[in-house]
Amino acid sequence: MVKFGVDVGGTTIKTGLFEDNGRLIEKYEIPTDKTEHGRHIIDNITDHLKAVLKEKGMEIRQCQGVGIGLPGPVDSEGNILGCVNLGWGTFNIEQEFSKKFEGLPVKAGNDATVATLGEQRAGAGRGMKNVVMITLGTGVGGGIINQGEIVYGTNGGAGEIGHMPVNLEETDICGCGKRGCLEQYASATGVVRMAKKFMNQSLGGKYSHTLLNRECTAKQVFDAAKEGDALAKETVECLGRYLGMALATVACILNPECIVIGGGVSRAGEILIREIEKNFNELVFKPCKNVKFLLAELGNDAGIYGAAALIN
Amino acid sequence: MVKFGVDVGGTTIKTGLFEDNGRLIEKYEIPTDKTEHGRHIIDNITDHLKAVLKEKGMEIRQCQGVGIGLPGPVDSEGNILGCVNLGWGTFNIEQEFSKKFEGLPVKAGNDATVATLGEQRAGAGRGMKNVVMITLGTGVGGGIINQGEIVYGTNGGAGEIGHMPVNLEETDICGCGKRGCLEQYASATGVVRMAKKFMNQSLGGKYSHTLLNRECTAKQVFDAAKEGDALAKETVECLGRYLGMALATVACILNPECIVIGGGVSRAGEILIREIEKNFNELVFKPCKNVKFLLAELGNDAGIYGAAALIN
Repeated sequence: MVKFGVDVGGTTIKTGLFEDNGRLIEKYEIPTDKTEHGRHIIDNITDHLKAVLKEKGMEIRQCQGVGIGLPGPVDSEGNILGCVNLGWGTFNIEQEFSKKFEGLPVKAGNDATVATLGEQRAGAGRGMKNVVMITLGTGVGGGIINQGEIVYGTNGGAGEIGHMPVNLEETDICGCGKRGCLEQYASATGVVRMAKKFMNQSLGGKYSHTLLNRECTAKQVFDAAKEGDALAKETVECLGRYLGMALATVACILNPECIVIGGGVSRAGEILIREIEKNFNELVFKPCKNVKFLLAELGNDAGIYGAAALIN
Repeated sequence: MVKFGVDVGGTTIKTGLFEDNGRLIEKYEIPTDKTEHGRHIIDNITDHLKAVLKEKGMEIRQCQGVGIGLPGPVDSEGNILGCVNLGWGTFNIEQEFSKKFEGLPVKAGNDATVATLGEQRAGAGRGMKNVVMITLGTGVGGGIINQGEIVYGTNGGAGEIGHMPVNLEETDICGCGKRGCLEQYASATGVVRMAKKFMNQSLGGKYSHTLLNRECTAKQVFDAAKEGDALAKETVECLGRYLGMALATVACILNPECIVIGGGVSRAGEILIREIEKNFNELVFKPCKNVKFLLAELGNDAGIYGAAALIN
């Protein structure tokens, strides 16, 4: 038997053909057709998956099912509650998809949560049952695995770590409309925002000799911090303070065995983990402090691995 | 068939005889014998439960099992990881207890978590699958129910909402040794601490006419706030700010259907809920905002109801 893992993004749809034991056989990519409110997306995926089976000389009955990760909240029953990136409204993706694929079992989840399941089953969190992942990219996403299973929450909104409030004094507004979300400090965008803020505060002052300029990227901030640039170091310390606080909070609430850190910002590597751990250890409740911080291992494949793992 | 729910406290042990459908038949209370590192506690409970069965003319084989809530972390396998209040070290409570009760099924959990299960099955959270409870007493405790089941975490430490960091600028030290825990603002002790702090700041200042004195209780602070006392109102607002932030965080992470508020401080009622909701609505991530705030209904019986619910 085989199964499919599908990771639907705003630009491309990644798919993977897996053995039923979770081993990846082959992966593919098709473009996401967002025209007409994304109405062709499901047909495009089912046509593609049928073509893959045909190419492998397999029948649909040799396929155990299809797992799907989607860029929006999905509840534990497969109801999509709006996927603005795809143009989708509210409907049951599992039923719709299965109907077009000869009644095959289909299971869906939010992309960040499904990627967390991928890292827990086949990546950095292998062998652990209680895993939290935080993805530091353009925004900040997250997912929670409890006793080996996804925590969905009531409306598929569990794991939205990026929008937890961490600073009641923040005056800038987050993309979500609130003030003081973790995403404003721990995303790539947030790192650049903070660096610029420190630049504005330092005209002619203590940071006048910074290596950074106003068009800097998050990577340049980390690189400059590694070289000892004072403004860049202060930016990274500020990130570490709020991220350490957020992860100490996650640890008090969920007591996970590990926290997997993924996304572009996680490529900063050791300097990032060191700042997180310093603040985490100071702020975490002692009985919850034994948490391993691990860098994500599967990169962009976490989504298809996790999606396939939705099918047992 | 019947089953027992047992709630072990530092002073008394509450027990309840339940029908297998969860209806309470009768409840009892015995003192907690903490002498000799609590070594008599398990025998005391089993003797008591056997006496109850005898009194009812029932055999052990008519009993489905015993659920137990304990004042310390308990993992999903029944391992106790230290119960300082009882003098206990590390051992498997389920195995020890069952051995002394003719092999009867025994299931244990942390008391705050078990009380949450009680409220979810038979109290304020009836009919809801994703429930968080926060108990505002001398300290602040909590518990998490996901899809109708307890979230234990790796070492039984999940739900320790009272020790999540909410204020990086706090200078006072929490009972746990850290600074800026929610418990320093939202517990009865925390409310009094804040009121005294405002008194110290206001000598001869804007709060010189406060109704409160330095021996005030949390109840007196809420009563004075209801009467319009400025210092008391500022204290309650400060509590609401940090508690609203903490519960907005819980909502982003877990997306529960309701948050049940229990403990002595929750008797403040409407004024407390109003302050929480005001801050919660400002700080919560919109997709996670549909949370009902409910006052706990079972009071001191939540523990025995939840313990009995551990046995299916």
